[in-house]
This record gives sequence, C-alpha cells and structure tokens, in this order.
Amino acid sequence: MFGARVARQIGGVCARHMASSGKPEVGYLGMGILGSAMAGRLLDAGFPVTVWNRSPEKCSDLAAKGAKVGESPKAVVEHCDITFACTSDPESARQVVFGQTGVLAGVSTGKSFIDMSTVDEETSKEIALAVTAKGGRFLEAPVSGSKGPALQGQLVVLAAGDKSLCDEAQACFDVVGKRTFFLGDVGAGARMKLVVNMMMGINIAALSEGLAVGTKAGLQGNDILEVLKEGALNCPMYSLKGPTMLEGKYAPAFPLKHQQKDVRLAVALGDQLGQSLPVAAAANETFKAARSAGYGDDDMSKVYEVVKR
Amino acid sequence: MFGARVARQIGGVCARHMASSGKPEVGYLGMGILGSAMAGRLLDAGFPVTVWNRSPEKCSDLAAKGAKVGESPKAVVEHCDITFACTSDPESARQVVFGQTGVLAGVSTGKSFIDMSTVDEETSKEIALAVTAKGGRFLEAPVSGSKGPALQGQLVVLAAGDKSLCDEAQACFDVVGKRTFFLGDVGAGARMKLVVNMMMGINIAALSEGLAVGTKAGLQGNDILEVLKEGALNCPMYSLKGPTMLEGKYAPAFPLKHQQKDVRLAVALGDQLGQSLPVAAAANETFKAARSAGYGDDDMSKVYEVVKR
Amino acid sequence: MFGARVARQIGGVCARHMASSGKPEVGYLGMGILGSAMAGRLLDAGFPVTVWNRSPEKCSDLAAKGAKVGESPKAVVEHCDITFACTSDPESARQVVFGQTGVLAGVSTGKSFIDMSTVDEETSKEIALAVTAKGGRFLEAPVSGSKGPALQGQLVVLAAGDKSLCDEAQACFDVVGKRTFFLGDVGAGARMKLVVNMMMGINIAALSEGLAVGTKAGLQGNDILEVLKEGALNCPMYSLKGPTMLEGKYAPAFPLKHQQKDVRLAVALGDQLGQSLPVAAAANETFKAARSAGYGDDDMSKVYEVVKR
Amino acid sequence: MFGARVARQIGGVCARHMASSGKPEVGYLGMGILGSAMAGRLLDAGFPVTVWNRSPEKCSDLAAKGAKVGESPKAVVEHCDITFACTSDPESARQVVFGQTGVLAGVSTGKSFIDMSTVDEETSKEIALAVTAKGGRFLEAPVSGSKGPALQGQLVVLAAGDKSLCDEAQACFDVVGKRTFFLGDVGAGARMKLVVNMMMGINIAALSEGLAVGTKAGLQGNDILEVLKEGALNCPMYSLKGPTMLEGKYAPAFPLKHQQKDVRLAVALGDQLGQSLPVAAAANETFKAARSAGYGDDDMSKVYEVVKR
Repeated sequence: MFGARVARQIGGVCARHMASSGKPEVGYLGMGILGSAMAGRLLDAGFPVTVWNRSPEKCSDLAAKGAKVGESPKAVVEHCDITFACTSDPESARQVVFGQTGVLAGVSTGKSFIDMSTVDEETSKEIALAVTAKGGRFLEAPVSGSKGPALQGQLVVLAAGDKSLCDEAQACFDVVGKRTFFLGDVGAGARMKLVVNMMMGINIAALSEGLAVGTKAGLQGNDILEVLKEGALNCPMYSLKGPTMLEGKYAPAFPLKHQQKDVRLAVALGDQLGQSLPVAAAANETFKAARSAGYGDDDMSKVYEVVKR
Repeated sequence: MFGARVARQIGGVCARHMASSGKPEVGYLGMGILGSAMAGRLLDAGFPVTVWNRSPEKCSDLAAKGAKVGESPKAVVEHCDITFACTSDPESARQVVFGQTGVLAGVSTGKSFIDMSTVDEETSKEIALAVTAKGGRFLEAPVSGSKGPALQGQLVVLAAGDKSLCDEAQACFDVVGKRTFFLGDVGAGARMKLVVNMMMGINIAALSEGLAVGTKAGLQGNDILEVLKEGALNCPMYSLKGPTMLEGKYAPAFPLKHQQKDVRLAVALGDQLGQSLPVAAAANETFKAARSAGYGDDDMSKVYEVVKR
Repeated sequence: MFGARVARQIGGVCARHMASSGKPEVGYLGMGILGSAMAGRLLDAGFPVTVWNRSPEKCSDLAAKGAKVGESPKAVVEHCDITFACTSDPESARQVVFGQTGVLAGVSTGKSFIDMSTVDEETSKEIALAVTAKGGRFLEAPVSGSKGPALQGQLVVLAAGDKSLCDEAQACFDVVGKRTFFLGDVGAGARMKLVVNMMMGINIAALSEGLAVGTKAGLQGNDILEVLKEGALNCPMYSLKGPTMLEGKYAPAFPLKHQQKDVRLAVALGDQLGQSLPVAAAANETFKAARSAGYGDDDMSKVYEVVKR
Repeated sequence: MFGARVARQIGGVCARHMASSGKPEVGYLGMGILGSAMAGRLLDAGFPVTVWNRSPEKCSDLAAKGAKVGESPKAVVEHCDITFACTSDPESARQVVFGQTGVLAGVSTGKSFIDMSTVDEETSKEIALAVTAKGGRFLEAPVSGSKGPALQGQLVVLAAGDKSLCDEAQACFDVVGKRTFFLGDVGAGARMKLVVNMMMGINIAALSEGLAVGTKAGLQGNDILEVLKEGALNCPMYSLKGPTMLEGKYAPAFPLKHQQKDVRLAVALGDQLGQSLPVAAAANETFKAARSAGYGDDDMSKVYEVVKR
C-alpha cells in the first residue's frame, strides 16, 4: 500500500513509537496551510504522525522532520488509530473519503476519522454515515482560525459527532487549539463554522468599506484603525488585517476563495432554513467580484482591493 | 434670559466657581443619553456646568446635583466660556444653533462652541462658518461610544476644527473620554464618526444574521457567542450586546434610529464620493425595516428582532 | 406495469390512435400547473397522451378527457414514443428519472425523453448522460411562462440537447408554445431559463418596492401602474400582476417557492462563473423572507406583502 | 435684461405672435437633452418660445430656428406667460429659481412657472412656496421618458400642484407628451417620477446582470434578448437598450449620473417613510460603482460595463 521506502518506515518505526510514547498513531490528510500546521504541531508534540497529500511534494517538509508519508488516504487510515483530514472544500473532502483509495476503503472497526475541513452539513453527514456503516467512528471538527493561530496551537475546534472520539482526541486537539467545543450531532460543527466564517466575511467587508469611504473622505487610514481600536469594534481581525490592507499586502492566511465559499455555504444554509441574510448576501457578491478579479488565492482581506476600486 | 430661579443661581454661583476652581464655565446643550452623561461627569469633576434641554424636565437630575439651567442655548453660550452640545440628529443640531434663541444668537468674540453631535459634514461646516463669522471658535467633536462608556468617561473624542480650542478643551475631554483624536479641518470628525458607526451597524447586523441562522440551524446562541469570543471577531460590542440580544432585552444604549441615521449618512457620503458600499447599503435597509417595525427608540441591537422574524 | 383498468385502455386505445392520427404516442410526467396544462393541450390537439403523477388523483381530470394513466414513469416511457416531464424542482426531476420505476428504467433505443422542468444544469446533464447511455434521446426544454400562457399555448420553449429530437417534437411544442428556441448543448436551456427567471424575480421585486414606497408616499397604486403602462417598463408581467397585487390576490400562477428557487439557482450559477449579481442576491433574500413568511405556495407576486410590511 | 439683438426680437416679435397665434408666450429654461427637445417641439408647433441656458451656446440651434434667447431666467419669466424649466438635478433646479437673476426675481401676479426637472419633493415644495408667495402659479411636471420620446412628443407628464395651470398648459403638454397625469398636491409628481425611475434603474440592472451571467454561461446575448421579447418581461426599455448594450454603445439618452441620482433619491424617500428597499439599494450601489468608473455622462445602460467586469 505504501511506496517501498515509506512502507519500510511504517513497518519498523510505528511499533516503537506506540511502545515508547503511549500516544496513538495519528494520520493527517491534506497538507494545505492549516493541515500542515496542525500535523507539524502534532509531530513536535511527540505524536507518531503519518501524512498524505494529493500532490506528494507538500509532504516533504514534515517527512524531513520525521513524519511518515502514506501513499493514499486508505493506507493512512489502515496504519493509524485516528486519522485527521483538512481539505479545502466539500468536493475535495468527498474525494478524500469516497475516492478509490480513499478513507472509506481503509475504515474498519476500531478506526477513527476526524474531518477538520470546513464543509457543508450534507457532506459531513454523508461521510459520517459511510464511516460508521463500516464500523468506524466519526467526528467532524472544523476549526476557527487561520495560519497564525494554527502554527501557534491557538485554533478553536468545533467538534460534533461521536462524543467518545472527541474525548479521546482531546490530547490532539489540545496541541492544535486553545479550546474545543463539542456541539452535538454531526453537522453542528459544520454549521457553527459557517456561521462564524460568514460573520468574518461580513466584518472584513465592513472594514473594507469603512477604509475605502474613509480614506476617500480625506481621513488617514491609520487614524481609522486607531479609532476602531479604542472602540466597541476592537477585535483581533481588525488589528491583524487592517495595517496590511493599508499596505496592500495580502499573503494568504485564509485564502479569499475559501472565505467566499464559506459565505456562500452560509447563505445556502439560510436558504434551506428560510432565513433571509441580506447583509451576508451582499458581502458574498463582493467576495465573488474579488474572486472574479483573480484574488482567489490571496488573503481574503484582498476584498478591499475591489471595494475601493 | 434665564428663568428667575436659575438666573439667580447664575448671578451668584458662577463667580465663586470661577474663583474657587480656576476651571472654565462650561455649558451643555442637549440632555439625551450621551449629553446628560457627559454633563454629569463634568459636574462631578468640579466644572461649573450650565445645562439646557428642549424639554426642560430632562435637566432636573443635573440641576439637583448642582448644575445651573439655562433657558435657551443663547443664554447658555452667553454665560459660559465653552459650550458643548450633543443632539440627536442634523436637524436638531441645526435648530439648536440657528434657532431664534439658539447658539448663534449668543456667540461673540471669546465664545467657544463644541458640537459633539453626530451630524453630516455639511451641517458641521455650516455651523462652523456661522460661529466663526461672529468671532467665536468652533470644534466639532462627535464621540465614539454609547451610554456605558459615556457614564464611565470612556468615550473616544473625534475632534476637528479649531486646534487651539481642542487643546483648551482637553481637560473636559479627559473627563468624558479615554482618548481624543484631532483629525484636521471641520468635517473630519463627522466623517470619522460616520465611518465607524457605519461599521458598527454592519457588524451588529452581521451578529444578528449569524445568531438568527445559527439558532435556526440548531446551534445554541450562547455557544455561538462563546466561539466568537475565542476568535478573530472577539470585540466589546459582541460581548456586550450578544447576551442581551439572546435574552430579547433592548434597553437603549444607542437608539436604533440614530444607528440607522448614521448608516444612512455614511451611505450618502459614499454617494458623494462615488464609493460603492453595497454591504452598508444592505445593512441600512435592514435597519430601516427595524425602524419601520417601531424599534427606533430601542437599542440598535434590536435589529436582531427583524432579522430573525 | 399499469393498473388493470389503465392497462386495458392502453392495450386497446393506443393502436387505434396511432393508426388514425399518425401522431406519436406522447407521455407526460408531472401534473402540476404547467404539466397538466400542456398535457391537456396535447390531448385536445389529438395526440394520444398517457399521463402520470406521483399523487395519482391529479391525473383524473385528464383521464376523464381521454388520457391514459400510467402507473409509473417507467411504464409511460415504455408505452410512448416521446415522454415529456415537468416537475417542480431538481430533486423531483431526479426522482422521476432515477427512481426505482423511473424514466431510466423504461428507456431503451428509440425512446425519447424531454424534460421541461426548470432544473440546474448539473441535474440536466446527469439526466442526459443517463438517458443517452441507455440508447435514448434527450432534450431539455424548460419553458418561459406560467399558468395562463400554458393554458393558451403561449409558452416559450427553451430547448437544448438532441437537435433531431427537437425537430421531431416541434409539432408538440407548437401546441404548447408560441416559439421554440434551440440553444445548443444540454444545459443551455437550463441556463437560459434561470437567467430569464432571475430577471423576472428582480423585476417583480422592483414592482413591489415601487408600489410599496409609492403608496406610502401618498400616490395611488393604480396611478403608478398607469404611468408604468405608458413608459419604457410597460411589460405583460406588470399589467398582469400589478392590479392583483394591489387587490392582495395571489392565486398561484407561478408559486413563490419556485421563483425563489430559480433566483437562488441563478445566483449559484453566477457563483460558479465568478459573476457578481448583487441585485439578484438582494431580490433572493427578499423572496426568502416571503417563503419564510409562509407564502411559498402562493403566487410569486406575494413577495409584495413582505416588501410593504 | 436681454442682450441687444435678443431684446429687439422680443420687443417686436412677441406681440405679433400673441396676436397671430393666440398661443401664450412660453419660456424654456435649461437646454439639456430633454429641455432642448421639448422647447424644439413647442417651437415647431407654433408657440412663441424664449429659451435660456446657463451656457448660452446651447441655445443657438433653437435660436436659429426662431426662438428668442433670454439672458437670465428672470428675463424669460418677465417676458413669458408660462415658463418651463428642465434642469439636471435639485441643486441646479434651485439655482435657476433662487439665483440672483433667477425665476423668482421675475415672478409676479399672473406669471406661471412649470418645473419639469426631476427633483426631490422638498426642493419642489420650496420652489412652490416661493413662487406662490410672490403671486405666481406653480406646477411641478417631471416627465417619464428620455431623448427619443422627447423628440417624438411621446413623454409622459407627471403633473402636480396648481390644477388650473395644468389645464392651461395642456396644449403645451400635448406637444411634448402622449399623456398627462395630474397627481395632486406639489410633491406628488416628484414622488411618482422617483418611483418610476427607481424601477427603471433596478430593471436595467436586472438586464445587465442577466446578460452578464447569461453570456458568461455560454448563451448568446441576442438569444437572451429574443427570449425576453417573447415573455412576460417584454418592455420597450429592454428592446431599446438590450441590443446597444451588447454592442457596447452608450450614447446618452438618459445619463447614468441622473439615473443614479433618481435611485438615490428614491432610496432616501424610502428612508423618510420607513420603507425598506433592499433591491433598489443594491442597484444604487451598482450605479455608484458605474459613476465612479467614469460613466456618469454616458447612457445609464452603461451600468452593464461594471456589472460584467
């Protein structure tokens, strides 16, 4: 299942890890910004970690630090006690699970799968159903926070599904996050994530509109940020993003296309529930214009560039 | 000019105050939520204060604590060194200044007028022009913050206009606020206030939409607030308003009609400047619906009630 | 496959019809407002028609006029040369095709299926792929127009897919519609329908906002409609819906929930294509509020009731 | 008051005109697109016409056809029985009336002033009050329609104010328009105009969004227009503007900046009345973006260029 070199690693190293550390074997699927940061912290914390990514070259940094590399999600799941995944959207989350050598192909009784991707509820429930039907345990656990908090273990984990698995995984969550919420049945984590990210999208659009109209009105951008800092809207996101927006720097902590996706999914959730969300819908259209302007892979705060044009 | 009892007060008390305290005589026009809080703090800080309000009964609390009561804005200005005003909208701000026994009728060389109302730039500039044409000094100084910060002297003062007056009034600003910004020519304070309040309106609408769709989706409102508190959006307004919104309590710290007015004026500012503000415009329409539902005098957070209906 | 009584009908009647009329046997699945109107016109025009509906009682009117009734989509397809369907949304369109005794189960070489439902492109393409994979021919042919035009044969047919089938079905289309467009590959009909219905949704929202603000401003609703009739916006929809909106009558010609669905799907199409659609998005939120107010089964023009509240 | 050559014209010609034609002397202030078209038609119909424009060169075409040219609004009013005006916005409407040599300076008993500009209600009422206070009669009479209808005498006149003046001016209105509505007290015409133009703005934005998303989705722009023509949205505006929008031609029939102004004023009217207008507000922001992109003087349909970018 694993490539020759990797297979050897696993064959030999794993047993020792299990014996020496008492920690479970953990897998991590998806080496994007968040996934690689979380897998790296787990590795640093002494967990035996096996990683996988669709483009394998993204695994090399962690491999160099001691992570094993699996050749497919199936192989990782078969090898590990608990397998985490963090992919970029519902489609890739499904692919990782339902693909030919996907998670599902490796699940059997005793295996645990924790999906930390931000997906819609339907996707999460389909995955839960499939995993538990094969005897596995499932927890959805999307996170709130972006690159910085991920690297510093300051994410917020929004877990829902199998409570016993949540308890067992707490040691891992403590390594990547500062707080874990258990929110109930599968789907609740997805919904919480969407709600919070929808608000994040609206608020960065609000900052963009405020800076745009304010600076056009002759105010200093920095004065606006300082006044905000003294007031009721003082929040980490404004302190973090405001100055870089004024400088026109948009290194992606949270890519704009993912931010837009989350606002879109939240608006779709409102549609299902008959909840009108006019402000979110307006923000969504602005993010779409930004995506259409080619900013999808830049930081979500680059929405400022289309707002002020 | 003053009613008999009041006139006596002024005739006798003032000189003593001036002598004993070395503090300037200050006037305060408009005993709304913010005005009465600020005038009260100035009084407590030992300033000799003369107050006025269109409906005189709102002056009684402060009169009981030692404030003099003027019978018109004109009388207050004539009696005081520096007269502050805090009215509810541009129309009343104009009325207080340009009315028959208004501020302007009392202004002469040596008199200073500081308007802390949130008004549009045009109104502020008209007042500035009229006051300075009669030899007075003018400062616009809208504040950021609502009832609580006003009572605790934690407002943020957004001053613009006569720099020398700003410096002289700093002792007063220090009593009502935690920080004073001097932003430049008259109009800059109005614009800053609008920008910040526009963002406030959007963000409370964002919280309303988030809580509405989240709770309809089966999440606990308190869980949403806790997750927000751990994340990039953690801000005083959410901590303060979130719990009361969930309880359906809307005692007016910042009346909804004023919040809507500010969003409207900000959108109008964007119109003048050719700055498209689609998210603010969407929020404005939601606030209008709330005003139309009869919530204009409740706290601005009551917009939640129309969002979730 | 057919119930006893129906089976007999089919056994005997069909051959005679084929012989006498030279017209093809046509099937019609889905006896909603549009489907029953179109099937009725085909019957009146002398086509031998077999109908089916999920709740069979909706077939009784047409059965009384001479239509045969099939017991399943499969049975209808097996019996007919060309089978039409008109269902209410993508989910039911899929169900009719992919269900256990669905269209697909009856398709074989020589069979033709024409889906006149308004669905998203993806659904249409899945159906096309499945039907052609079994040797059938497929045409998507959503229509523009509601109850009245359907009853009068004045629909506009937006066809895409198999050109030869479009040509053969032209005789049927001429019975139900006044004009047929052939738009290209499967999906183009769905997209055209969404674009037009999105605009319809926006325009009825525009009329609602115009009537609401106009009458609140003291104008007579009828004067507004008369002025519109004289101007550049004079269109059948305004003439038709305007007077009933003022009377508060909303008998469903086009149910609001379907109108909202189409605006939603159009906004989603814009999302896929990176096309920002802020006005459509705003209209969508208003329609959601109307759906949420319980107006989903009333005419789409009832959006006026939430606009003016 | 008049320049030498013009003064002579007036001195001699007028009396003859009055005698020979029995028609009243009419004045026309503002030689923009609409004003010059209407004045031209009045001249062609045999009315003795005196024109004025802020930049006098715009009067030369009509002068060449026999119009007299006044040197100020005051002079025109003094010379004529009925003076019409059509200016571009509330500010210029006020300027023409209240300026030093404005309409008001020329008004006395027996003089009539008809303002065909599209202005807000407040402006119209101020003008009405001022004109009637000096003994004049006033009618507001904004029109629905743009360049083409104006040249062909197919405007719709939305009159309100002095009913007797409306009756007397009917002969003039018949020359420029196809239908005259008398709507009640001053302000009703302004409000009707705003309501209709607001809807026009929304509908052209709807067409822009429809064409933008449709063509990105692979549909032919002309097919979309043809389908619209067959359906419930078939209206003169779409037939007229659709083809030129697809060609990218935007010769100004109704300048975008005026369209945006009207949507803005309508939204402001909704604000006064507590009527939420989310779709109009979204359209307004799109028009603002178009104005900001430099399209203010092009046809309002150029909003399509910012929608599709």
